[in-house]
Amino acid sequence: MPENPTSTRATVQLTEKMAAAGADVVLVVTPCFYKGKMDSRALIQHFTEVADRSPVPVVLYSVPANTGLDLPLDAVVTLSQHPNIHGLKDSGGDISRISLIVHKAKSQDFQVLAGSAGFLMAAYCVVCALANVLGREVCELERLCVSGRWQEARVLQQRLIEPNAAVTRKLGVPALKQAMDWFGFHGGACRSPLQPLSQEETLMLRKDFSNNGWL
Amino acid sequence: MPENPTSTRATVQLTEKMAAAGADVVLVVTPCFYKGKMDSRALIQHFTEVADRSPVPVVLYSVPANTGLDLPLDAVVTLSQHPNIHGLKDSGGDISRISLIVHKAKSQDFQVLAGSAGFLMAAYCVVCALANVLGREVCELERLCVSGRWQEARVLQQRLIEPNAAVTRKLGVPALKQAMDWFGFHGGACRSPLQPLSQEETLMLRKDFSNNGWL
Amino acid sequence: MPENPTSTRATVQLTEKMAAAGADVVLVVTPCFYKGKMDSRALIQHFTEVADRSPVPVVLYSVPANTGLDLPLDAVVTLSQHPNIHGLKDSGGDISRISLIVHKAKSQDFQVLAGSAGFLMAAYCVVCALANVLGREVCELERLCVSGRWQEARVLQQRLIEPNAAVTRKLGVPALKQAMDWFGFHGGACRSPLQPLSQEETLMLRKDFSNNGWL
Amino acid sequence: MPENPTSTRATVQLTEKMAAAGADVVLVVTPCFYKGKMDSRALIQHFTEVADRSPVPVVLYSVPANTGLDLPLDAVVTLSQHPNIHGLKDSGGDISRISLIVHKAKSQDFQVLAGSAGFLMAAYCVVCALANVLGREVCELERLCVSGRWQEARVLQQRLIEPNAAVTRKLGVPALKQAMDWFGFHGGACRSPLQPLSQEETLMLRKDFSNNGWL
Repeated sequence: MPENPTSTRATVQLTEKMAAAGADVVLVVTPCFYKGKMDSRALIQHFTEVADRSPVPVVLYSVPANTGLDLPLDAVVTLSQHPNIHGLKDSGGDISRISLIVHKAKSQDFQVLAGSAGFLMAAYCVVCALANVLGREVCELERLCVSGRWQEARVLQQRLIEPNAAVTRKLGVPALKQAMDWFGFHGGACRSPLQPLSQEETLMLRKDFSNNGWL
Repeated sequence: MPENPTSTRATVQLTEKMAAAGADVVLVVTPCFYKGKMDSRALIQHFTEVADRSPVPVVLYSVPANTGLDLPLDAVVTLSQHPNIHGLKDSGGDISRISLIVHKAKSQDFQVLAGSAGFLMAAYCVVCALANVLGREVCELERLCVSGRWQEARVLQQRLIEPNAAVTRKLGVPALKQAMDWFGFHGGACRSPLQPLSQEETLMLRKDFSNNGWL
Repeated sequence: MPENPTSTRATVQLTEKMAAAGADVVLVVTPCFYKGKMDSRALIQHFTEVADRSPVPVVLYSVPANTGLDLPLDAVVTLSQHPNIHGLKDSGGDISRISLIVHKAKSQDFQVLAGSAGFLMAAYCVVCALANVLGREVCELERLCVSGRWQEARVLQQRLIEPNAAVTRKLGVPALKQAMDWFGFHGGACRSPLQPLSQEETLMLRKDFSNNGWL
Repeated sequence: MPENPTSTRATVQLTEKMAAAGADVVLVVTPCFYKGKMDSRALIQHFTEVADRSPVPVVLYSVPANTGLDLPLDAVVTLSQHPNIHGLKDSGGDISRISLIVHKAKSQDFQVLAGSAGFLMAAYCVVCALANVLGREVCELERLCVSGRWQEARVLQQRLIEPNAAVTRKLGVPALKQAMDWFGFHGGACRSPLQPLSQEETLMLRKDFSNNGWL
């Protein structure tokens, strides 16, 4: 049988390839095929070994909508103490969980990145799909938060929620690529098995941007 | 067969009993037994009929951890226009959803109540289990938010997340009653089939309060 | 607050009302509102108390599609020893689980009822929605199984799967009532919040019966 | 970004490698990372392209416990007509679904393989984890079914359910390897991130075999 692409060994090999190709940091998703066995013990062991051997720093990536698996809180806290693990991208959307991680890992030099522009206001940092389309606006939102201009931040945040949902959980990567094309970037074709948007989905996407004044 | 307790008719009868007993408002949970059939159409019809006939104002209650069902966004927006529906208590914890509802229903006189002290900062109002135990502190958090003292709010918010999780999704109603006893209130016995906490659970609960400086 | 309709006390009261109204046996669904707390300990305690006090025999009812909760195997085995618990209706559709319960409880006088005509062949007995529409055929299927005519049973079983799915998980109670009307029985109106079938759903239902030669 | 290992292109390349290494047939799991977008349209397109280009026959593999995704019934029926798709391994455990697929695809030369020894009796063929441990017994069960000796089949089937659950959904691959060692085969070490069984899990596993008379 060929190597399971999310085995610890294959993951280490991939970090080496990425580093050789010039990556400054690697984002490592939770392994999830045998999800029933992926408890804290297994996940701590996996990420520790990957971080021990990766030539570049590791950022943990928890994205339950895709993996069916939340990286458990206690595993994040333990892993935040590893010198080669620099942060977590959390796309789960549970804001109390994210706040709690920030609170628990605050003695470490550990960044918690909100994996969605839908709740940027509530976190410190963000890595998000929508920034590929409305990058300036996402940066503006961060600036407003950092400088404490909460009233303006709230207004801008609310206008970003629907476009953000459209290019993530509602219509996904094909919508992200379509929206990039509309805004003058190169989205391009989807990689199969992802399919292009249907006409109806394209209209829905357009509405989520135009209703909020972006198109 | 006896009446299904969450049928529209039984729900209307219950609002009448509650009003007769002196209730100022009724909190009406989403019906959920036939959850596969509870789409927007059915739920709008149900809550509209309940609100038409309830002698006192209705607050919608969406609590997916218990019902297995999220009240859909479009149903909330439609129902927010009913003159006898005054708000929504949302215990789902998806903060982008809550912000979006606030945004969409802002022309109405409609209150969105965060159903958990775990993310009070992100909402306008709150109805939460933890207020039975740390009532003063939850009010203080609201005051800090309302007056824009975000730095202090954040610190207090973070100290409330673990106790809040403990008396809700982690250990539930039996933990809430135990904690009330500790803080000088009357928690009392659980109603069967809920069981009292085991010794191990009691220790875990104690730690979630003491680790954050409340005990 | 009014009594939670699935509290132990309310359930006992309901068994008394049912017995007084002439019921020979009561089918008692798993309590599920606080589903996070409904472990084996709580469920064994609940059903034991109900069975101790019910004037008529109790049949346990596990229907995870509606309650979000499977009655755990070890709880069923323990409860099967109670003299006033005579069986289990299991609508979960996991045939290995059902076989295992039959195997584990075989020393007791305990009946396991498959809660669906979709897998009658694999069980001993059945209580199913479809019997309201195709009662003769469901009985015929049982006769074929009991007398070991497996080839004919298989053919009949396969023709019943789609109609059965249509009146249960696919289109639910409104479809069951519609089909009853077609077959000369009285289905009648649905109780709100259940809604009548749309035109499209009615066509879909018709096809599931006609494709298998029943209409 | 490196190739997503379950993209259509990467899957085709893998079938070529497998064929070159001597495989007679390839078992192709449903792609699942972007599970929200994996509807029938996308899955039919994916498997059609893989089957068009694979040098050896393809067997579809639906394993929702690992992928979070059921291959939809209509997609299976469509794909069963492809000349290079020879069957389906279905590890979902929904026996009405499996019977229905057998029924719907019967005009094709298409094999439906029950992906578990927990319900072998109900299917025609089986590919199962337990056969690595109790191979002779699984074959004996098939022989009993094929020759219509249903009473003996039922007794044997029931003794296999617990060992089967133990090496699949309950304790998984590490348990399978441990049990292989006990029965004189080479199980060997687990590939990380899978962890070896704890002492308590090993005892539990032993009991599931010894209680049914296999150890």
